[in-house]
Amino acid sequence: MPGFSRFTSLVDALPATVPFVGPEAIERGRGLAVKARIGANESSFGPAPSVLAAIREKAGDIWQYNDPENFALKAALAAHHGLSPANIAVGEGVDDLLGLIVRLVIEPGMPVVTSFGGYPTFNFHVSGFGGRLVTVPYTGDREDMDGLLAAAKRENAPLVYFANPDNPMGSWWDAESVVAFARALPETTLLVLDEAYSECGPAGSTPVSDALIDLPNVIRTRTFSKAYGLAGARVGYAFGTPETIVAFDKIRNHFGMPRLSTEAALAALADQAYLKEVVGKIGAARERIAAIAVANGLQPLPSATNFVAIDCGRDGTYARSIVDGLMQHGVFIRMPGVAPLNRCIRVSTGQPEALDLFEEALPKVLASL
Amino acid sequence: MPGFSRFTSLVDALPATVPFVGPEAIERGRGLAVKARIGANESSFGPAPSVLAAIREKAGDIWQYNDPENFALKAALAAHHGLSPANIAVGEGVDDLLGLIVRLVIEPGMPVVTSFGGYPTFNFHVSGFGGRLVTVPYTGDREDMDGLLAAAKRENAPLVYFANPDNPMGSWWDAESVVAFARALPETTLLVLDEAYSECGPAGSTPVSDALIDLPNVIRTRTFSKAYGLAGARVGYAFGTPETIVAFDKIRNHFGMPRLSTEAALAALADQAYLKEVVGKIGAARERIAAIAVANGLQPLPSATNFVAIDCGRDGTYARSIVDGLMQHGVFIRMPGVAPLNRCIRVSTGQPEALDLFEEALPKVLASL
Repeated sequence: MPGFSRFTSLVDALPATVPFVGPEAIERGRGLAVKARIGANESSFGPAPSVLAAIREKAGDIWQYNDPENFALKAALAAHHGLSPANIAVGEGVDDLLGLIVRLVIEPGMPVVTSFGGYPTFNFHVSGFGGRLVTVPYTGDREDMDGLLAAAKRENAPLVYFANPDNPMGSWWDAESVVAFARALPETTLLVLDEAYSECGPAGSTPVSDALIDLPNVIRTRTFSKAYGLAGARVGYAFGTPETIVAFDKIRNHFGMPRLSTEAALAALADQAYLKEVVGKIGAARERIAAIAVANGLQPLPSATNFVAIDCGRDGTYARSIVDGLMQHGVFIRMPGVAPLNRCIRVSTGQPEALDLFEEALPKVLASL
Repeated sequence: MPGFSRFTSLVDALPATVPFVGPEAIERGRGLAVKARIGANESSFGPAPSVLAAIREKAGDIWQYNDPENFALKAALAAHHGLSPANIAVGEGVDDLLGLIVRLVIEPGMPVVTSFGGYPTFNFHVSGFGGRLVTVPYTGDREDMDGLLAAAKRENAPLVYFANPDNPMGSWWDAESVVAFARALPETTLLVLDEAYSECGPAGSTPVSDALIDLPNVIRTRTFSKAYGLAGARVGYAFGTPETIVAFDKIRNHFGMPRLSTEAALAALADQAYLKEVVGKIGAARERIAAIAVANGLQPLPSATNFVAIDCGRDGTYARSIVDGLMQHGVFIRMPGVAPLNRCIRVSTGQPEALDLFEEALPKVLASL
């Protein structure tokens, strides 16, 4: 039986797709159990105990819609960053905000510049609004800012995506270079500066909060899904000039934020000591993942994120067989989607027990190939 | 300072707006405390104790993204309705699903038929995608199905919105009439049948779950925000033919569902005994609200929802002054937005303590006008 006959031509041309296959779907599809969940750059260190306490304490309020203005969370974020609440938009994860940003700027056929192999969910949204992806290869496993800038100018692109630190490679640029890149872009090009992993990077890898706050064509995005350990809560935020940020109010799902997620984010933000502790654990886990890679003759790449990309020295087919082989041992990891990045596998930091399983399984998988 | 200079022309033309002002914003703006929260059709009876237990028990999993396929919830909903999981789409509240539906169907300038005074958030989404609203007046405080059908045909509209039971009036049609309406629509017109309040209606007011499941041009929406008491969780769902429902996968925010919200919905669905108990309380509260209205010389309208519209016998200015006056006493209610519906105020059912405050404040407010 056919579906409804009159979806838009854009919708008719889109595939029904999931940008990422979840570990639960892999378990169902392959009849395997995930024992080490280190594939989605979640934080198995979890959120702070104070966050869990807040969720449990506030659970009884769940019959109430959340404040559609997100007043308390915007105020807390503003205080945290030394900005004004008017600089901040809150959304149901960065994925939601990315979709809104694309919608604000892109009409069918318009060019959107990103890196070849960059964040698939951004590309999903671009396709979903009919944008035309213009991709720039990574250079030296880093996003190529000069190439992105040239492409943006050449195409007169209204939108450019740049992640720092980067996913899926874990690489980064120093804050000064990022600021120079943003300031070099034409004012008619909106830069989405995705800083989902900024809490995990070394000093000097993320511009200070107000470094670009004067630029109407820059929106920076952050999330509680990574270092804060709240991937399942869906809380992201964006900051920029008030006049740019107010555009979200024109199209966002005003009652979209879950009440307990908001409470969780407020508690997480208030517990910076815990965040610091987790960032230390992430650093230690990165070192351990790198050591495991080296012990198995593989090459870990430097990382400013909560994961490590490991160069397996061959092609995407080989790396895929490692990913699939590890899953046979219950170790869920992922890998970049395109060459030459897909010579790598990507392993998220996590609790020592998860890394134990990875350490145990990796040599067996490599020996079996 | 101007914002980004190159938003789409559609976005430039949109106002920055909130479809509803939240009670928190009223508190902040007017320096008042909400003591009786009976304005947003939330359920102060709350979710089942089993739901709160599930949230507290699963809180520690919040570091994990939710399954992007929503497998477990779709399976549970399918079992509940006697449908297949392929018939069901899950979203971050019905508001999210309404936005997706509009996006699937509407290109700028296309006509969308709804009732004059119907759900503002649907209209917000239509405007947000550039649709042209074609409105049909209520007749006898009910949505006018004949009028909606005629408008859909006259305009060759690709999309029609119809709520049963209705918000903001609380009125309803019998299931047979709703089915006849759906079947009379051209197959090139998609019907959104919003059944957010269906659990609260009398027997025979909602078509059985499979009554329209053969029609590719019907999507029915339901929510956990009303009778299930989970407004703050943001869980809605839609059902229709598999071939129509799969379209959501082309554009939805796949990792958008919060993990604890999904757990809450699963637990709520499993506790139908609690739902039945709440529906009984909603019925009793409706009767009490009606009695309070009558005691004050006002006319309550029949309701199949978790609220009661009360005809105050004069114009919108008068009703507005009652709404504002009640808020001075800490009683938060709302009212319809347009004439002639705005001769009414709308009072949500709730705990006896909240209705006590309403009962106490209403005569004082009326006397003061």
